[in-house]
Amino acid sequence: MVQTKRQLHLNLFLTGMGHHEASWRHPGSETGNNLKLSHYVKFAKKAEEAKFDSLFLADRYAVSRQGAKYGLQGGIEPLTLLSALAAVTENIGLIATVSTSFNEPYNVARRFASLDHISNGRAGWNIITSGTDGEAQNFHFKKIPSHGLRYEKAREFLEVTSKLWDSWEDDAIIADQEAGIFADDQKVHEIHHKGKFFAVRGPLNIPRSPQGRPVLVQAGSSADGIDFAGQYAEVVFTAQQTLEDAQRFYQEIKARATAFGRSPESVKVLPGICPIIGKTEEEAREKEAQLHHYTNTEFSLHQLSNRVGVDLSAYPLDGPLPPLPATDGHQSRTKLIQELALRENLSIKQLLLRLAGGRGHYTIAGTPTQVADLLEKWFENKAADGFNIMPQLMREGLDDFITYVIPILQERGLFRKEYAGTLLREHLGLKRPDTDTINLSAHA
Amino acid sequence: MVQTKRQLHLNLFLTGMGHHEASWRHPGSETGNNLKLSHYVKFAKKAEEAKFDSLFLADRYAVSRQGAKYGLQGGIEPLTLLSALAAVTENIGLIATVSTSFNEPYNVARRFASLDHISNGRAGWNIITSGTDGEAQNFHFKKIPSHGLRYEKAREFLEVTSKLWDSWEDDAIIADQEAGIFADDQKVHEIHHKGKFFAVRGPLNIPRSPQGRPVLVQAGSSADGIDFAGQYAEVVFTAQQTLEDAQRFYQEIKARATAFGRSPESVKVLPGICPIIGKTEEEAREKEAQLHHYTNTEFSLHQLSNRVGVDLSAYPLDGPLPPLPATDGHQSRTKLIQELALRENLSIKQLLLRLAGGRGHYTIAGTPTQVADLLEKWFENKAADGFNIMPQLMREGLDDFITYVIPILQERGLFRKEYAGTLLREHLGLKRPDTDTINLSAHA
Repeated sequence: MVQTKRQLHLNLFLTGMGHHEASWRHPGSETGNNLKLSHYVKFAKKAEEAKFDSLFLADRYAVSRQGAKYGLQGGIEPLTLLSALAAVTENIGLIATVSTSFNEPYNVARRFASLDHISNGRAGWNIITSGTDGEAQNFHFKKIPSHGLRYEKAREFLEVTSKLWDSWEDDAIIADQEAGIFADDQKVHEIHHKGKFFAVRGPLNIPRSPQGRPVLVQAGSSADGIDFAGQYAEVVFTAQQTLEDAQRFYQEIKARATAFGRSPESVKVLPGICPIIGKTEEEAREKEAQLHHYTNTEFSLHQLSNRVGVDLSAYPLDGPLPPLPATDGHQSRTKLIQELALRENLSIKQLLLRLAGGRGHYTIAGTPTQVADLLEKWFENKAADGFNIMPQLMREGLDDFITYVIPILQERGLFRKEYAGTLLREHLGLKRPDTDTINLSAHA
Repeated sequence: MVQTKRQLHLNLFLTGMGHHEASWRHPGSETGNNLKLSHYVKFAKKAEEAKFDSLFLADRYAVSRQGAKYGLQGGIEPLTLLSALAAVTENIGLIATVSTSFNEPYNVARRFASLDHISNGRAGWNIITSGTDGEAQNFHFKKIPSHGLRYEKAREFLEVTSKLWDSWEDDAIIADQEAGIFADDQKVHEIHHKGKFFAVRGPLNIPRSPQGRPVLVQAGSSADGIDFAGQYAEVVFTAQQTLEDAQRFYQEIKARATAFGRSPESVKVLPGICPIIGKTEEEAREKEAQLHHYTNTEFSLHQLSNRVGVDLSAYPLDGPLPPLPATDGHQSRTKLIQELALRENLSIKQLLLRLAGGRGHYTIAGTPTQVADLLEKWFENKAADGFNIMPQLMREGLDDFITYVIPILQERGLFRKEYAGTLLREHLGLKRPDTDTINLSAHA
């Protein structure tokens, strides 16, 4: 089939129980399997069979005792789990979240190059700067460093990892057994990076990987985040509550990339969508109500307080969200939550339920056609290049999306029926980066 | 079968090409597959079928341009590769090397807990402090920190990771879906660690793993190293050149463990053995000569110079090893190399060949019976609880050991024919550690 239409991209936001914060309490979840590899193998294989572009694992570097009490057990470290899934899948992309605030660039560059090698070119890195004091306190900080400082460090971190990924040129390996020359040492480069945060000599201790560099993914939507995405990101995950906001954000990202000398197609914008699917809209709404029924107000309030950086337990539940001060944490999400509460005139209690399934991402309870229509509308109206699909309940939400929504998208010619390539870059229509030899040539 | 005899333990030192430094040049190696997962899956499955206790991946945090030229390409990061192998094996232990000098304890504790979960209790950590300037320079140091300082940091690192692994008690998880209580928060602990090197609040963001803690492995044989092993190690890898030295070391490790209030059985000593196996001794020696034939003197000298911290290219190849100054690098290996050169009266050139296959580990070229006799002798004479088997050429060396030596050991009642348990701890006869609640109770 010759594909004449632009194709949308689908990423699965992989969780053990579901994206709804109370999903683990639902009888349909398999709470006891949350730390078992077999549980995730099952989901990964389903998603690959359905031709998703990629799987993605979010991450946080802390769990609180109260979080543990109410179901936030933390989980398997993303690169560990995705490395295991690389061994039992063949095509689907594998996107791991790793923070630039609590890691060394040499280690991170190497681990992504390693995943890219063992998966034959399917690695992606969701770059985060992390935004909570609870995380910072596991890494010798008293408080999370300021938003600006975190992004400054992230930019230097990416500069270092990019140099390291390029430190072995693509044709550096000769492997002449007879002559005894493994690599052309003129094509293996020390990087001699010295910056404000890092000093790294290089070269990386692993040759360049199938994709050259992992696909770079980013989700910050603050001014710093958008700037960073414009410079580096090839995929942008984002939370958007209205078509208009999504269009504005889409336009902003493409413009920012252009300003950095990149083509608008070199960065794909994937808003998060948290669907609940029913044969009828009523059935979908009943499913949603059942999930909402399991929420715990105390816990939801604790979560929201953490997210916006204000202890909301001091405010009446039936009253409005108080004005939120400027935060050094997750700026764009805080702004989105404020606007959502104001636009829909929600009390704190109503807001908690509104956020339970999507935490700010777009939620929809509807029929397969309603969900497909939504995706098509956003996709065709320059609000999205595809979507980050976040099933609220695993496995039912994933099964429903695969069984009922994907075939509609395929019928409409919007989504692949077969993988066209093997690299994640190929699924996404992204080019393989050349080595930045200008950057390195001084250090041969 | 009732096993009446004490059983020896076998670990496979896993490499892509072989432990001999020139193995990649041998026509029998598969140099082009060194970064392919399928290559290692094949070896891991063979080793599991042969009932090895475990696989082990060594590691270094740097590669030099000259190293790259002559075949040291670096390789897949150990936890990445072992996570992938966890998905395609069921019983064999998975031991990854991670340095305490270039990582954060929170990340390391979590990654090993994650590997232990996804492998159903097969994770081991080979703890290294790293010993070269080349590695330090990839992590903002000018030179490698002093030997004493590295071990001081390692001890605090282990204190932190141990607290983190214990921060969720074994029965912390309730998972009461109806009541909405996932964990008993009285059994999830912040650790509030504040030390010279690290400040970590905890708890860990993953519940306690099947083995409680990964099996702790260590290979330092300096005074600091032995002290560290006595306190923490459950498996000790070591390079020993004579039965007498191995016996002395064995005795020292057991005594040191006893001094720390541990039983001598709680730490297993596994010297490295690099076998080359032939149907006759002559055939084995021919195989060894063929591997030696591929060595490159310039490269071997570069390697040895790095290892002992002295540029040996300034000395005549046919002359003796010069006196070596005290090093802040790999102290015990430097001492072993000096003693070996002196005992066997070797020129530098002869020493290079002597080290090519084992880098200080015991090499033997002989028949299957000769190899089995050696292992039995060391095992029965309190020089070893088992061995770290380092095939000099992959895959031939591994195949020969499995096909010809293991059956002899099994016939002699020295090695298992079936796995008796599923945890790596069970293979090794090590008990599962309790949570150290005394340590944590103050911080409920």
